[in-house]
Amino acid sequence: MLSSTTNSATLDWTRADERAVDTARVLAADAVEKVGNGHPGTAMSLAPAAYLLFHKLMRHDPRDPDWLGRDRFILSPGHSSLTLYIQLFLSGYGLELDDLKALRTWDSLTPGHPEYKHTAGVEITTGPLGQGLASSVGFAYSQRRMRGLFDADAAEGTSPFDHTIWVIASDGDIQEGVTSEASSLAGHQELGNLVVVYDENHISIEDDTDISFTEDVLKRYEAYGWHTQRVDWTETGEYVEDVQELYSALLAAKAETSKPSIISLRTIIGYPAPKKQNTGKIHGSALGADEVAGLKEVLGFDPAKSFEVDQDVLAHARAVVDRGAAARSEWDSSFEAWQQANPEGAALLERIEAKKLPAGIDAVLPVFESGKDVSTRAASGKVLNALGPVLPELWGGSADLAESNNTTIEGSASFIPVSRSTDAWKGNPYGRVLHFGIREHAAASIVNGISLHGRTRAFSGTFLIFSDYQRPAIRLSALMGVPSIYVWSHDSIGLGEDGPTHQPVEQLSTLRAIVGLDVVRPGDANEVGIAWKTMLENHENPAGIVLTRQNVPTFARGNGAAQGDTFASPAGVAKGGYVLAEASKDGATVPADVLLIATGSEVQLAVQAREALQAEGIAARVVSMPCVEWFNKQDAAYRESVLPAAVKARVSVEAGLALGWREFVGDAGRSISLEHYGASADYKRLFQEFGITAEAVAAAAKDSLAAARN
Amino acid sequence: MLSSTTNSATLDWTRADERAVDTARVLAADAVEKVGNGHPGTAMSLAPAAYLLFHKLMRHDPRDPDWLGRDRFILSPGHSSLTLYIQLFLSGYGLELDDLKALRTWDSLTPGHPEYKHTAGVEITTGPLGQGLASSVGFAYSQRRMRGLFDADAAEGTSPFDHTIWVIASDGDIQEGVTSEASSLAGHQELGNLVVVYDENHISIEDDTDISFTEDVLKRYEAYGWHTQRVDWTETGEYVEDVQELYSALLAAKAETSKPSIISLRTIIGYPAPKKQNTGKIHGSALGADEVAGLKEVLGFDPAKSFEVDQDVLAHARAVVDRGAAARSEWDSSFEAWQQANPEGAALLERIEAKKLPAGIDAVLPVFESGKDVSTRAASGKVLNALGPVLPELWGGSADLAESNNTTIEGSASFIPVSRSTDAWKGNPYGRVLHFGIREHAAASIVNGISLHGRTRAFSGTFLIFSDYQRPAIRLSALMGVPSIYVWSHDSIGLGEDGPTHQPVEQLSTLRAIVGLDVVRPGDANEVGIAWKTMLENHENPAGIVLTRQNVPTFARGNGAAQGDTFASPAGVAKGGYVLAEASKDGATVPADVLLIATGSEVQLAVQAREALQAEGIAARVVSMPCVEWFNKQDAAYRESVLPAAVKARVSVEAGLALGWREFVGDAGRSISLEHYGASADYKRLFQEFGITAEAVAAAAKDSLAAARN
Repeated sequence: MLSSTTNSATLDWTRADERAVDTARVLAADAVEKVGNGHPGTAMSLAPAAYLLFHKLMRHDPRDPDWLGRDRFILSPGHSSLTLYIQLFLSGYGLELDDLKALRTWDSLTPGHPEYKHTAGVEITTGPLGQGLASSVGFAYSQRRMRGLFDADAAEGTSPFDHTIWVIASDGDIQEGVTSEASSLAGHQELGNLVVVYDENHISIEDDTDISFTEDVLKRYEAYGWHTQRVDWTETGEYVEDVQELYSALLAAKAETSKPSIISLRTIIGYPAPKKQNTGKIHGSALGADEVAGLKEVLGFDPAKSFEVDQDVLAHARAVVDRGAAARSEWDSSFEAWQQANPEGAALLERIEAKKLPAGIDAVLPVFESGKDVSTRAASGKVLNALGPVLPELWGGSADLAESNNTTIEGSASFIPVSRSTDAWKGNPYGRVLHFGIREHAAASIVNGISLHGRTRAFSGTFLIFSDYQRPAIRLSALMGVPSIYVWSHDSIGLGEDGPTHQPVEQLSTLRAIVGLDVVRPGDANEVGIAWKTMLENHENPAGIVLTRQNVPTFARGNGAAQGDTFASPAGVAKGGYVLAEASKDGATVPADVLLIATGSEVQLAVQAREALQAEGIAARVVSMPCVEWFNKQDAAYRESVLPAAVKARVSVEAGLALGWREFVGDAGRSISLEHYGASADYKRLFQEFGITAEAVAAAAKDSLAAARN
Repeated sequence: MLSSTTNSATLDWTRADERAVDTARVLAADAVEKVGNGHPGTAMSLAPAAYLLFHKLMRHDPRDPDWLGRDRFILSPGHSSLTLYIQLFLSGYGLELDDLKALRTWDSLTPGHPEYKHTAGVEITTGPLGQGLASSVGFAYSQRRMRGLFDADAAEGTSPFDHTIWVIASDGDIQEGVTSEASSLAGHQELGNLVVVYDENHISIEDDTDISFTEDVLKRYEAYGWHTQRVDWTETGEYVEDVQELYSALLAAKAETSKPSIISLRTIIGYPAPKKQNTGKIHGSALGADEVAGLKEVLGFDPAKSFEVDQDVLAHARAVVDRGAAARSEWDSSFEAWQQANPEGAALLERIEAKKLPAGIDAVLPVFESGKDVSTRAASGKVLNALGPVLPELWGGSADLAESNNTTIEGSASFIPVSRSTDAWKGNPYGRVLHFGIREHAAASIVNGISLHGRTRAFSGTFLIFSDYQRPAIRLSALMGVPSIYVWSHDSIGLGEDGPTHQPVEQLSTLRAIVGLDVVRPGDANEVGIAWKTMLENHENPAGIVLTRQNVPTFARGNGAAQGDTFASPAGVAKGGYVLAEASKDGATVPADVLLIATGSEVQLAVQAREALQAEGIAARVVSMPCVEWFNKQDAAYRESVLPAAVKARVSVEAGLALGWREFVGDAGRSISLEHYGASADYKRLFQEFGITAEAVAAAAKDSLAAARN
């Protein structure tokens, strides 16, 4: 562990800076007091650290929160949103006093936790502890990858793509398992662009953290390979906010470019509130009028006034706007120089910043011949490898299941330091293939970070069952509306012998339940290509592609809509659901007696059942429904054309819970589904034993026809 | 770190032991070869370690796998199930060669991953990595708690309640975040009864773990406060399986009773397979006939034979049965002595082993007066505190939200070393109040371990939204059928200002989707008591109680079924759903025109809507449905009596997704629900803005009536 005095650059710190920090504390107390609830404590004691970052260290331009070259700031303890809001106010991001006064109220710019896409300057939605810190590792991945993609040869610190990821983390963030996973990867990756200030205030909701948290955090981070420093403002026995000491540590952390840095900053939560500092209460409750008044007295503010901001102090703080503009202008020159020297890179950057795919992407999508059985995971691997050369922005990998998930873009280096190369994988810090280890949750959080930081498109792979490990990160991607991509293979009892611990049952239903997540389960190899393309065309929300382990038939198809006995082209995948095979009689399309709605590996069962029913004179239409969310976005006319309201006899077919299908099949409908856990055996046996067969689909169709007649 | 030579007790290790170990390796290769898939590598290289544990260290009685006094063995890498199955075979647990031959096939005792309640000797279902190791911490908690409950004053090592928890963990287990959380707690708790062998074989599915996992694991565990040892069988440059060295380390680990122990055992996966050892391939694929033959040649087995077991070797190994019987007999004496000396404790133990609640438990349940608004979380806290004195087996706590979740049984010490006491909490190693820190996932895994180890009833608390962090552990509790209890407060947008990151939307639906989990959402304070009692009466599967942050009305009720305008007693909660308020006219029960089905805080909306509808001449029945799973278990007649099939006009009311309610309301039904994320504001405003109101319920009822008429 380095001493915190290795860097002795002198901080320019005046009375106006001090006053700005104290203003931040008073505003935090006032804002919580006004609404009557919230988290004042950390915003008060961390005000010096946050102010240091925003006013003395970060490269940012409050006039352009989306500036490509900006440093990023991540507040992992989102409950302390005031820490961020007040700096956005003091830095001139557009938040004003009225916004602070509207804290935690309907429709304000200052909700309880910071929300991405809602308040300018908020880089990521935080609140569920651990996610901010874990995703910050993804921000750092993205910075390095983009640097490699666009300016690999520039000397360190000279590229317009060089910048720093600054993070504030709390005791809670450090305790969460997802940050352990991500921090281990950050050390492994030698992320010299990542600086974490760990606010070790020793207080959480159950008061003194000694009841549950006594590990040696910095030693743990050393074990991960991080650069560690300790800044203890209590070390003298008095509480002394030595901002110079913290500043020096931050500079040293930034200067350490061979590994990520963590600074343990020992603070007293709620300082300098006279009575409630250093208590669990000040973490998450309003201080009360007396204590707010006491705080103001301590700091030399008028206890009778609320939201008092000295205009000179504000002007002093907002000088950061001019400094930001100057930095921006300097960066603009270097960026223009880069553009001129790198026209190809500049064109690529322009395309991905515009959220566009290259022209002619359809031409590279592989076409799979019918008649040959292919697992959809294998098809996905082929699609990825076809897209790889034309989409340099596409990268990703797996949580130790690369070969099972088929997530490797071949011929690319792994995104790891060269020294981490193994016999099986060649490393390069600017590589393209990600290896998350057996850390599914961090994989998802890191991909969120990548998707928030820039416009590259990253994916993580694991088995569908382990999406359960990723749910907090998946939900955040959906809530934020960032286009993280999940590759989930081994999508049902079809994985066979690994048995019930590995066989998804409820996962399809429960993932579809996440508002804003697209769950895409293609029915054959040719659906996979359109699925990937459609996911990549969308930049506004996350998607997961759900793939079989086992082979499934590749259907023989025509070039357009289904007609008679000719199956539709896979183009309908982009609409979420489409008529794959028409109800037909003697080769001609006829009105459907019954609709068979299926996804993934069960589409083949619907197809077989259609034929069996047809042989009995029952006209059955097969609807492939790879993505319910996309289908529901289509206009009513299209949806009616696929699922005519008049046809009440309907069967859904999916090797998972029926949950969610009732909306499609209605009271007269039937669902072929799995309502219990799986078992360990050959998958064909399992489908048979559990009654997920073409025969069962046909029987259910007749049952539904009978019900619909009543 | 201690040297591994601190304990020099000489291991009794003969040629027969060696032969038994080699037999284990060959059986592992044969079993996977026969079925054609599976995980042979670790079962081969870890055979010496597993054999050492089962035959030289563990106190166990293969004739009684449920012996209270047994040591526990947890195989965290469940994919290496053969490691366990073969020791169960060699130890005489009832598994025979035919079972090994049936590996990973339908209905066998040897599924792909070990399954609790399925195969004798399997203490826990493992497979999803991290869960076994994390739950082992719960086993260790339970051992200590039961020791404290029944035999607190006995000298160390003299109590029949003293035993050791032995764990094998893999690289994957060590990488998972949930084990980081649990391991930090284990160190904090100074769990001297926990010994982990970490199989550091440096190979996972993506081959050499250097691509993603280069942290210093033992240093990390030192930082957690663990006793660490390294046994490196590669240290000489040759691979030497020094079983004495491992044995000494295991003895030293067991002897260290002031902290948990981890031994990093460097092995070569798949040793001594001639070509495939030390590769990713041998982790999870059959070796192939040539390699199996090569292995047999190396070990002096006949390459032409499969499943070859020398009967003398088997007899030698199964001598553990006699040793186990002797140990058992010794223990029986000490247990009887304890019973005689502790009649009260013995009676308590007998009761909880019989899975019975004490008589008269109804008498202690608090009765909440009507007319006063109480949050269901506050009611839950009162119920817990009423039950505490009569149910010593009940214990638990929160993931740093004790006061918010109302999970503290007052007047009890915290389950932590005395030295971890804080101003707010008094610690005792035998205490009752759990503090998980901000580690929701470990909390759930630890409670699973407690529930697997003994028959105490443990609960963990957090906000409902953070059940997402716990899903892998929740699912395992349901799959295993263990009665873990989850307390989830802050159950909807009703939590208000903390906003969308904290407001559950899909969680009720997605938790109900976990097969075997009971999700219980009481509608008022008096429902809470019955809910708790019903959960505690059940010992066969997990349950979660879902509680409001905000106050809700306590309904005025009669003593029996609903009648006219008299509300039902809360007894119906035990049936999952019941008629809370009858459809009535002029005070008399009348047939319902419409059914209003509601849960939790939305029951009040249904109650208000009933009155409004009644005023318009529409007879509405209110069904409170606190637990769909319990309701679905009732017979058809009861269900029909609550939800008459003839009444098609139905409305569900729940401040979450409608997903799952369609089954109850049908095509003509309507759902008052929340189909998008929440927002940060006062909760009353949110219910209003999002249209979850009594007016909306009444309007939906009329809409449904119209639909039902068509």
